[in-house]
Amino acid sequence: MYEEIALMSATLAFHQAIPGYLTRDGDRIVVKLAVGGVQPEIVRLRTEPDNEEALTDMTRVEAHDGWAWYQAEIEIPEPDVQMRYLFKLVWSDRLLWYGALGLDEGVPTLNQMFRYLPDHQVPDWVSRQVFYQIFPDRFAEGDPNTTPETDAYDYLHGLTAQRRSWGDAPLAHQGPVEFFGGDLPGIEQRLDYLADELGVTALYLNPVFTSRSNHKYDTVDYYTVDPHLGGNEALVSLSDRLHEKGMKLMLDAVINHTSVYHPWFQRALQGDAECRARYVFQGDDNEQPHYASWKGHDSLPVLDFANPANVETFITGEDSVIKHWLRPPYNIDGWRMDVIHMLGEGAGARNNHHHVRGLRHAIKSHNPDAYLLGEHFFEATPWLQGDQEDGAMNYYGFGHPVRAFLAGLDIAYDPIRLDAAGLARWLAKARAAIPFAQQQAQLNQLDSHDTRRLITMLNDDAALFQAAIGLLMTYIGAPCLYYGDEIAMPGGDDPDCRRSFPWDRDDWSSAAFSATQRWIRYRRASEALQTGALIDLYAEGDVYVFARVLAGEQCLVAVNRGEGRDVVVADGLTPLAGQWQCLEGGGELGRADLNLSLRLPARSTVLWRRQAD
Amino acid sequence: MYEEIALMSATLAFHQAIPGYLTRDGDRIVVKLAVGGVQPEIVRLRTEPDNEEALTDMTRVEAHDGWAWYQAEIEIPEPDVQMRYLFKLVWSDRLLWYGALGLDEGVPTLNQMFRYLPDHQVPDWVSRQVFYQIFPDRFAEGDPNTTPETDAYDYLHGLTAQRRSWGDAPLAHQGPVEFFGGDLPGIEQRLDYLADELGVTALYLNPVFTSRSNHKYDTVDYYTVDPHLGGNEALVSLSDRLHEKGMKLMLDAVINHTSVYHPWFQRALQGDAECRARYVFQGDDNEQPHYASWKGHDSLPVLDFANPANVETFITGEDSVIKHWLRPPYNIDGWRMDVIHMLGEGAGARNNHHHVRGLRHAIKSHNPDAYLLGEHFFEATPWLQGDQEDGAMNYYGFGHPVRAFLAGLDIAYDPIRLDAAGLARWLAKARAAIPFAQQQAQLNQLDSHDTRRLITMLNDDAALFQAAIGLLMTYIGAPCLYYGDEIAMPGGDDPDCRRSFPWDRDDWSSAAFSATQRWIRYRRASEALQTGALIDLYAEGDVYVFARVLAGEQCLVAVNRGEGRDVVVADGLTPLAGQWQCLEGGGELGRADLNLSLRLPARSTVLWRRQAD
Repeated sequence: MYEEIALMSATLAFHQAIPGYLTRDGDRIVVKLAVGGVQPEIVRLRTEPDNEEALTDMTRVEAHDGWAWYQAEIEIPEPDVQMRYLFKLVWSDRLLWYGALGLDEGVPTLNQMFRYLPDHQVPDWVSRQVFYQIFPDRFAEGDPNTTPETDAYDYLHGLTAQRRSWGDAPLAHQGPVEFFGGDLPGIEQRLDYLADELGVTALYLNPVFTSRSNHKYDTVDYYTVDPHLGGNEALVSLSDRLHEKGMKLMLDAVINHTSVYHPWFQRALQGDAECRARYVFQGDDNEQPHYASWKGHDSLPVLDFANPANVETFITGEDSVIKHWLRPPYNIDGWRMDVIHMLGEGAGARNNHHHVRGLRHAIKSHNPDAYLLGEHFFEATPWLQGDQEDGAMNYYGFGHPVRAFLAGLDIAYDPIRLDAAGLARWLAKARAAIPFAQQQAQLNQLDSHDTRRLITMLNDDAALFQAAIGLLMTYIGAPCLYYGDEIAMPGGDDPDCRRSFPWDRDDWSSAAFSATQRWIRYRRASEALQTGALIDLYAEGDVYVFARVLAGEQCLVAVNRGEGRDVVVADGLTPLAGQWQCLEGGGELGRADLNLSLRLPARSTVLWRRQAD
Repeated sequence: MYEEIALMSATLAFHQAIPGYLTRDGDRIVVKLAVGGVQPEIVRLRTEPDNEEALTDMTRVEAHDGWAWYQAEIEIPEPDVQMRYLFKLVWSDRLLWYGALGLDEGVPTLNQMFRYLPDHQVPDWVSRQVFYQIFPDRFAEGDPNTTPETDAYDYLHGLTAQRRSWGDAPLAHQGPVEFFGGDLPGIEQRLDYLADELGVTALYLNPVFTSRSNHKYDTVDYYTVDPHLGGNEALVSLSDRLHEKGMKLMLDAVINHTSVYHPWFQRALQGDAECRARYVFQGDDNEQPHYASWKGHDSLPVLDFANPANVETFITGEDSVIKHWLRPPYNIDGWRMDVIHMLGEGAGARNNHHHVRGLRHAIKSHNPDAYLLGEHFFEATPWLQGDQEDGAMNYYGFGHPVRAFLAGLDIAYDPIRLDAAGLARWLAKARAAIPFAQQQAQLNQLDSHDTRRLITMLNDDAALFQAAIGLLMTYIGAPCLYYGDEIAMPGGDDPDCRRSFPWDRDDWSSAAFSATQRWIRYRRASEALQTGALIDLYAEGDVYVFARVLAGEQCLVAVNRGEGRDVVVADGLTPLAGQWQCLEGGGELGRADLNLSLRLPARSTVLWRRQAD
């Protein structure tokens, strides 16, 4: 819709397109807007101090090549309150609003306004990384002596620990208790592969703290790394090696619930009042205890954050779990918070946002540069307004729509038909609802330990695989591969998506591997792909075209899932002297009057780039 | 967009379309959905207990005439927490989500989900009223002896009170201090005109409390009705007469700021510490006091709600201002809260929502059936989620877009081009963001004491005037006329929009008056127009078609601002045995296969209705 309006009016506009279009200078901010095409007579910045509309006339500070730049400077009303703003463009016979979803005649709704929270920004390094998620038991074995042996201990429901051989298929009936032997030393031994050969720059590990399961989402000791994974020393060693290489490390915290084997819960069962108060017991029958558990799984008793002892232990205390691992000698760089939206008081999520704000405060007061990532399978907008998370696992705003467009599957694997227009609209709506800073700090993934494998969902289609990896490495936010994505490792539903990594290269898709390497290289070589704004240029049928832009660099990305074709797209890019160069995918890029013309090969993903001379 | 999808899939759906589609039964709710066209294989209700997705399969309970009805019953997770929900429709080869903006392939964003807050509903009577807003000094003079004489007292900036003659033009340079003599006895004397001849059922009065201005937005005494308007006795008498006639009365509360002539402020200037603490003094120079004032108007010092004394005086105290007038002998039925979004702690709006929630609690604990209306010139979505206001002055979601469509003017009178598609999209977005209950309790207006007059904005166009009145009387929410709208009274910017009402009928537009009478009659005679859901049927170019529906009654409204034409619209209405009857506007209504065909006269506003036999 907004593209049509833009075309209709022969007008294009962007703001926040380029970091630097909003800059803070003490208690003032300077806001810029670029407008292409027929220039309006008046351009106004609309803000809402004290929830009331305020309009500030913008000054034209520069104009050339059919574009003009407007600027306004305003006082920050309250640095801890989110600013929402829009631009009003008025011609002699009409007006348009420019908001986070583009141009519109109607006033954009509050959730389609640009937003900026002066006192809450995100770590600058996040969007510059290429993350790699590892399920530690399945990536690489470093020390064969630490793996649990079969029947080494009991688990719930009559299960016992099972030792498996590398390469065997995971078995659903013993999903949580089979151990393949991967560990932290194994990861450390493969850093050359990860960093130098593949090119990833940051690791995100599924939980590593002591637990009886392999997934370790049921923690038994929050202060020790599971000895089966190498213990605390292995974590220190891995962290040191990563940091020597300039890499980052993110761990997974599970504080919504514990394991039933956690000593608190065991003591609670024995009647310890203090320990009982950490949970939500719902009956007094000690023979058959009733307690609130995560989604009804009796192995996962929910922690009650109405109890100040839990708040202190996990969040606010001097040596709280959250702070402990950010400190030497561990020095982790970020936390992925499991089911963060469900954490709360009582059995449910009551006062959730209050506690997530507390979590932010605890983390940022310790290390303002630490990354706070929330797990959300669905929309995370309320947690991404600046005062809570830096970013979310971006299933909602990236993985889900991309899967729908390329694989025809929704997040529950129901059949979905999404064309490029639907894809662009979905992506844009998700972006528009959160500040630009949080858009940059989203963790984009195509699959994970909780989904089927990418290549399996794509029915082994190599062209769609390229499209997926291409989108991942060019989209706004931080790209994150799930271990094995790079070699097109297959896998169905959990636990099949958690197979052991095949280190025999004969088992790899070398085309997938080299494509992934290339796209990582493009990402890492381009400041625009890492930090630039995203501008939609075309979305129709099988073709989605967008650009990532900075003042001195522009990248154009086109995904065509169908037949080869020529498309003409409105040129939403400000002029730049440099010549376009094709980095990937071929085809042609030219001009057609005020537009760009693109020749796209069939089932292709292309990347063009130009830089200021 | 959603209409297209609906047509494409030959599927239509609605929920909340009909009050009764969501019903509460203790701690459970029953949710229904009607689906027309190709029936899905699975229909699921999606809710979010503890912020996590939960899907409930819906049962098909009825099917005929190409429609089927699905139903699910779920437990209310927490009655004081807003439920957001969607429907997922799955066919063998695709799926669609049905949310508050209609059908979509992509998951609707949180602000496009249906929403329901079990413990916070709105007064049932609101949407059944036809409101009439009166600026008391200008409607009718009852007692000529109470009007201020010229120079009777001083006002700010060298102004003094000015006595004016009925019918004279208001003068901008003395806008706030000229008095034409209208008063509460005058209103009471005209109740036969209002109730019996015109047909309005509720009055909303601009402020009546003691003040030196005619607009009285600068209150001097919150516990007395201005003697110039007849004093407290006149209010008691008016209230009694209204209630005898089954009518409602809403007053206007201005508690964000007082007049500088309020005794507190006067004593504050003299150094009284307790009184100073009610305001926000920003400097200690008593010779030249600096204090926070509303939008910088020095006549309106802002009250500081960080001071518990203000909270108690206005909101929570036993005889707080808000409670006082709800009680006998005044018994008012509702409050319109002036600039409610700006009220807060310190100079600005800090903690605004907390205080508005307090206001709701104070009003509802006194009288759950009292109406809490907020003044917002712009989007009020955050205040309309159930826990704060019942409704807002609906400039954003009604007056502004309707003005844009019919008059080509935006809220600041800048030129705007909005076609019917843009109108429908704007209206739908505004509705979608708030619960159905709050949609019903919005106060829709075409103009007010703060805008130019409707007929003036429409350049005296009678057909567009009909369209405006027709939309007002058929749209979801409570319609509110501004005194004089019904006779097409002209007026430019304030104070010209506050002219004295011409009681000589030769000065009326009799066509406007009779049209207004008719549309009020249709509204009052139709349960569907008063309480039914709104379903968009067609919006393109000059033509907007929608329906208001109940189980046993359907009204179809079409506004055509252009040439006569035939349109074919998807039939989004469930079957009903009765025949369509044209109540207003002419043309033809027939069937074309699965669609409705409409012949619309040029520049017409038509109303059709059918009822179950």
